[in-house]
Amino acid sequence: MNYRLLIQYDGTDFHGWQIQAGQRTVQGELNRILSLLEGTETNIHGSGRTDAGVHAEGQVASVQLNRAFTPEKLRNAINGNLAADCRVLEIENVPDDFHARYSAVAKTYCYRVVLGPVMSPFWFRYAAQESRPLDVELMRRAAQLFIGEHDWTAFSAAESDAGSRVRNVMSLTVTQDWDERGRCRLLQFEISANGFLRYMVRSIVGTLLGVGRREVDEAIVKRAIDEGDRNLAGATAAAHGLTLMSVQYDR
Amino acid sequence: MNYRLLIQYDGTDFHGWQIQAGQRTVQGELNRILSLLEGTETNIHGSGRTDAGVHAEGQVASVQLNRAFTPEKLRNAINGNLAADCRVLEIENVPDDFHARYSAVAKTYCYRVVLGPVMSPFWFRYAAQESRPLDVELMRRAAQLFIGEHDWTAFSAAESDAGSRVRNVMSLTVTQDWDERGRCRLLQFEISANGFLRYMVRSIVGTLLGVGRREVDEAIVKRAIDEGDRNLAGATAAAHGLTLMSVQYDR
Repeated sequence: MNYRLLIQYDGTDFHGWQIQAGQRTVQGELNRILSLLEGTETNIHGSGRTDAGVHAEGQVASVQLNRAFTPEKLRNAINGNLAADCRVLEIENVPDDFHARYSAVAKTYCYRVVLGPVMSPFWFRYAAQESRPLDVELMRRAAQLFIGEHDWTAFSAAESDAGSRVRNVMSLTVTQDWDERGRCRLLQFEISANGFLRYMVRSIVGTLLGVGRREVDEAIVKRAIDEGDRNLAGATAAAHGLTLMSVQYDR
Repeated sequence: MNYRLLIQYDGTDFHGWQIQAGQRTVQGELNRILSLLEGTETNIHGSGRTDAGVHAEGQVASVQLNRAFTPEKLRNAINGNLAADCRVLEIENVPDDFHARYSAVAKTYCYRVVLGPVMSPFWFRYAAQESRPLDVELMRRAAQLFIGEHDWTAFSAAESDAGSRVRNVMSLTVTQDWDERGRCRLLQFEISANGFLRYMVRSIVGTLLGVGRREVDEAIVKRAIDEGDRNLAGATAAAHGLTLMSVQYDR
């Protein structure tokens, strides 16, 4: 039986998604619980890794199990064994060829920044903070440069990666809203692509924040994209402001 | 100089507002910092206590200081010494006769409940959970019984209290919304009164949840209010679902 899971987690106290010896990770917790339920070593596949400190409002994972559970019973059994900072929201039975990672066609991330001198106690785990004034219109204009299919070498981790660094960014919006709960202005970057390299969202956001502070101009951003030169990109924004919002599949 | 402060805190790791020896409290933290800044023992007054685990999006406090600070400098000096779960959002200079508690004319609290079998990792600190179905229309009708000036003995802590237990509840609304972030339904009770007894909001909410589950009927609620009999009221809802939203003043 193949199951698809919709998962939320507060990444603050996780060492990211991917299982690692001696670290608390989301995949590690889920594998531990699923192996208990299944009675044998079990491996769940996420749509992709999230780094340490990154949150998920809509991570998707898939797992093959020999035992047949109703989706509701499986969800409750897993949640009953998880700490409160991670929850399976929904489970459904899916055809055997569904794989959370290989079947994914796109993903959407949100990066949040609280604007102003005071960081609300209700946002410090989930958003970065910027107390300097930002030119949001400049950022919106520069955001358009990131739309399209490019090699994103300048906006990814330096680590060697065998595969292609070409990804298609389908949308990147910059919105600014009043957050009633935190009584603060909240800047949100929402970015969708057919895939993301490591640190890609955080590097794009860090660069756009540089544009907003007038430290980086559009021509430099354009050159960074065209030339793939990491030195032209801005700083990588902090992990805790980033949230995986959703994963898109064809069916 | 008299200062008025607008304060937010995540109550999870506080033993409530009021200073207590050997406990981490909001007033205790603020007094410690203000005494350092002032160079002498200083006492800040809140609009009222909040119990252990209760949050505040808009607590108000006032403090008299001998040293003259600009409001912005004072705010930054306090925030620089606070942990991230408490923040002063705004400070203003106010006339000497302003007192956060005695000048308050009304307060508004919100009680939040996540509906359904799964508690989002983004709400477990700030909302209770109800997995049983609730009749929200019944709750709305019963909520009307709480409007007006009454003796709220049946809906408050048993502890002896010298003063009157008469308070005027000005409004009590029950709303149900889809929360996009938690991907869950969120039930919110918003209640305004000229004052609250200890456990009053949590006891009213607990009773209304009993009505929603059809465990308590309207006639019982009416008798509890009229007769002041604590045994007729429902259970007291958990502290962590409660948030002080705002404090109203005449000027």
